[in-house]
Amino acid sequence: MVSTIRVALIGCGTVGGATALHISNNAPLIRDRYGVEIRLSAVVDKHLAHAREIGVPEEILSCDLDSVLSRDDIDVVVELVGGITVAREIILRALRSGKHVVTANKALLAHHGEGLYEAAHEAQRVLAFEASCGGGIPLIRAFYDGLAGNRVDAIYGIVNGTCNYILTEMIRRSISYDEALGEAQAHGLAEADPALDVSGHDSAHKIAVLAAIAFGVRIAYERIPVEGIDSLDLLDVSWATRLGYVTKLLAIAERTAAGIALRVAPCFVHADHPLAWVSGPFNAVSVYSYPTGHTMYYGRGAGGSATSGAIVADLVSVATGAYEPYFSGGRFWPDRTGRVAQNTPGSIVGRYYVRALAQDRPGVLAEIANRFAAHGISIASVHQDEMPEGEGNLAPVIVVTHAAGEDDLRSAVAEIDAMPQVSSACAVIAIIDEPVEQLIEC
Amino acid sequence: MVSTIRVALIGCGTVGGATALHISNNAPLIRDRYGVEIRLSAVVDKHLAHAREIGVPEEILSCDLDSVLSRDDIDVVVELVGGITVAREIILRALRSGKHVVTANKALLAHHGEGLYEAAHEAQRVLAFEASCGGGIPLIRAFYDGLAGNRVDAIYGIVNGTCNYILTEMIRRSISYDEALGEAQAHGLAEADPALDVSGHDSAHKIAVLAAIAFGVRIAYERIPVEGIDSLDLLDVSWATRLGYVTKLLAIAERTAAGIALRVAPCFVHADHPLAWVSGPFNAVSVYSYPTGHTMYYGRGAGGSATSGAIVADLVSVATGAYEPYFSGGRFWPDRTGRVAQNTPGSIVGRYYVRALAQDRPGVLAEIANRFAAHGISIASVHQDEMPEGEGNLAPVIVVTHAAGEDDLRSAVAEIDAMPQVSSACAVIAIIDEPVEQLIEC
Repeated sequence: MVSTIRVALIGCGTVGGATALHISNNAPLIRDRYGVEIRLSAVVDKHLAHAREIGVPEEILSCDLDSVLSRDDIDVVVELVGGITVAREIILRALRSGKHVVTANKALLAHHGEGLYEAAHEAQRVLAFEASCGGGIPLIRAFYDGLAGNRVDAIYGIVNGTCNYILTEMIRRSISYDEALGEAQAHGLAEADPALDVSGHDSAHKIAVLAAIAFGVRIAYERIPVEGIDSLDLLDVSWATRLGYVTKLLAIAERTAAGIALRVAPCFVHADHPLAWVSGPFNAVSVYSYPTGHTMYYGRGAGGSATSGAIVADLVSVATGAYEPYFSGGRFWPDRTGRVAQNTPGSIVGRYYVRALAQDRPGVLAEIANRFAAHGISIASVHQDEMPEGEGNLAPVIVVTHAAGEDDLRSAVAEIDAMPQVSSACAVIAIIDEPVEQLIEC
Repeated sequence: MVSTIRVALIGCGTVGGATALHISNNAPLIRDRYGVEIRLSAVVDKHLAHAREIGVPEEILSCDLDSVLSRDDIDVVVELVGGITVAREIILRALRSGKHVVTANKALLAHHGEGLYEAAHEAQRVLAFEASCGGGIPLIRAFYDGLAGNRVDAIYGIVNGTCNYILTEMIRRSISYDEALGEAQAHGLAEADPALDVSGHDSAHKIAVLAAIAFGVRIAYERIPVEGIDSLDLLDVSWATRLGYVTKLLAIAERTAAGIALRVAPCFVHADHPLAWVSGPFNAVSVYSYPTGHTMYYGRGAGGSATSGAIVADLVSVATGAYEPYFSGGRFWPDRTGRVAQNTPGSIVGRYYVRALAQDRPGVLAEIANRFAAHGISIASVHQDEMPEGEGNLAPVIVVTHAAGEDDLRSAVAEIDAMPQVSSACAVIAIIDEPVEQLIEC
């Protein structure tokens, strides 16, 4: 017996089109492997040119969202509209009319996840969202299934391919951020308006979604400190390389003594850490959990094909019923959990790279070192190159600290910024070495 | 309501002990997250000293396997005995008496998997084996769940941590295989008898298990060509580095025009391929699938803690019922599939590194080049260093080929081996560049 699941695809752009193709191309394989038939019953978009171009049959095309959402012969709605208003209404209507929902919408889940999970649980339908983070990488599943029974301690993710491509090119060819961004746009790897990606907010959406599931807590999105790559100076990117690090935009969620801390920022990742190797548009997420230790998940973080892979995996999980026990029985979905202390000031402790542009005069370095000492911060190394003659007397002074509290660090840096011999604000970048895993071997 | 699953652990060595600890330490977390209670009801071993040492309660310890397997109040048996005789009987008895089974036993699944899957399906119980491949990496799940709906085209795995540690040290410090093996043994990363690991057979067991699920076919284990690292010469490992490659023991399963091809062999992996970065005892598996493209799964491939993570993830999947739809409904389990053409001669096409030790005389290089040409093999590059005086006249001659059929390559090499100017057999090592992905973008 083959059970059939009837799918309505709402939004037929790059990802929607790839999903329609994927369902059509791999339906026989899915039937053979799982005994379920994924049937595309409706494709809805305002503009149907792309859907027609890729050969979606005319009889399932529609511009009439309302009538498709009202149909009784649809089992699952795949929401690929994007944005956080219309998409939210679509999902709520679909759930309330008894349909399961599959979505790739990280922004929506980050901002309004709780209400959506709640609506799904009330309707006794599932809300699946593997495609929302890390494109085709089976990542959400790692948290609810693959690492089931583990206590997750930290997540470090390269979850924006546009930023990773730009950084990879800056490092590889010593070009500026602006030049690398222009190339990414020319290659179709960055939007004409790249703000959502390069500002770090897309990464923040994703870590909010991941952390909620991984830690089983509600995340206050607005409390995540977000720093993008758009103000990154090639000078610092080059220093990272000299010091044995690779500059990556990381989305981080950590269990700290004072709750959960999330952040998005450019970081210097130790060259031996596997995240340092992830280049070009690829994504990877490192997870530290007890007792499994470090696992990492790597793949294409965007693009129609990869993302459609995640969507169809969700459709299979919905069709077989395998996702249902986790979704209905799991107590870690944000509507069933509470808030915990999040981003408590001072809870993040780590090593930092601080770069000042200072006048090349006697006493300046001593003064900078004193500022760190005054806040109890121990310096691991100091670097200052001899400046070529005739270049003026502003020299980059690099300080790498031992582990320090973020608040102490910021206080020391504020004092250094205020020094008359220091021009402009210091660059402050977190250093990510491989954390010591809390493994208990026996 | 909390449903309880009662577990009997058969075998309490490193992995069994870690599993007992993990269940005990993380039971509250599992109850909170999944609403299921994993209760350790029995721990069986011939020798109970280790179990006592780690604090397993006396009342659940037993040396009496038979009586534990006969108990009605056990829901799942975790088989950690190893080997392919007693373990097989334990699993069959457990299934037939209505118990689910979780196992880490790759050798058993590689040799006798079909009968075990069949027994499980007949008994309407599940057989879960995440811990059998890649330690704590959620890997088996990638094939039945995370990549559900994908067509898997190729799997390239570093699945033996002992071999990867030895190779990493040979490369990093230019030491011989014997020296690196000795160090691995001193660090507890290789067994006193390392044969199963270094011969490649442990890797072959794992790729047999993975390929069966990934491709949905029966694998004939005995038809897998297996080459280990034990005859690897530092000379070739060093040449790999010079040529921009990293030597890795890979377990490979590929969809070819003539069926499925599996093999285990030391390979030269392009330095830009993420598998090249996997160092020390870590494992990683690259999967190429349509439409998701390249995904990679990385983590600790062995050790009690990591492996226990996979075992407990399986216990949670069994307890929640999430694994059941895949196991009962999936049609890709080896007892439900047939054999396909496997390892058809000539089906593997790739690039190769061939190293001869040849007399440093006029005409030798031309003769070697002629042997390749005679078999239609195109040469990509040739390398021969100037030999220092007084070192005798045997010089390594390195040939890197363009894509060639394996049979043609072997024929050419056999002729080169037979040349009077060539001493000993050539080293022949497959080169792994990043394959072109069969992605359809739309």
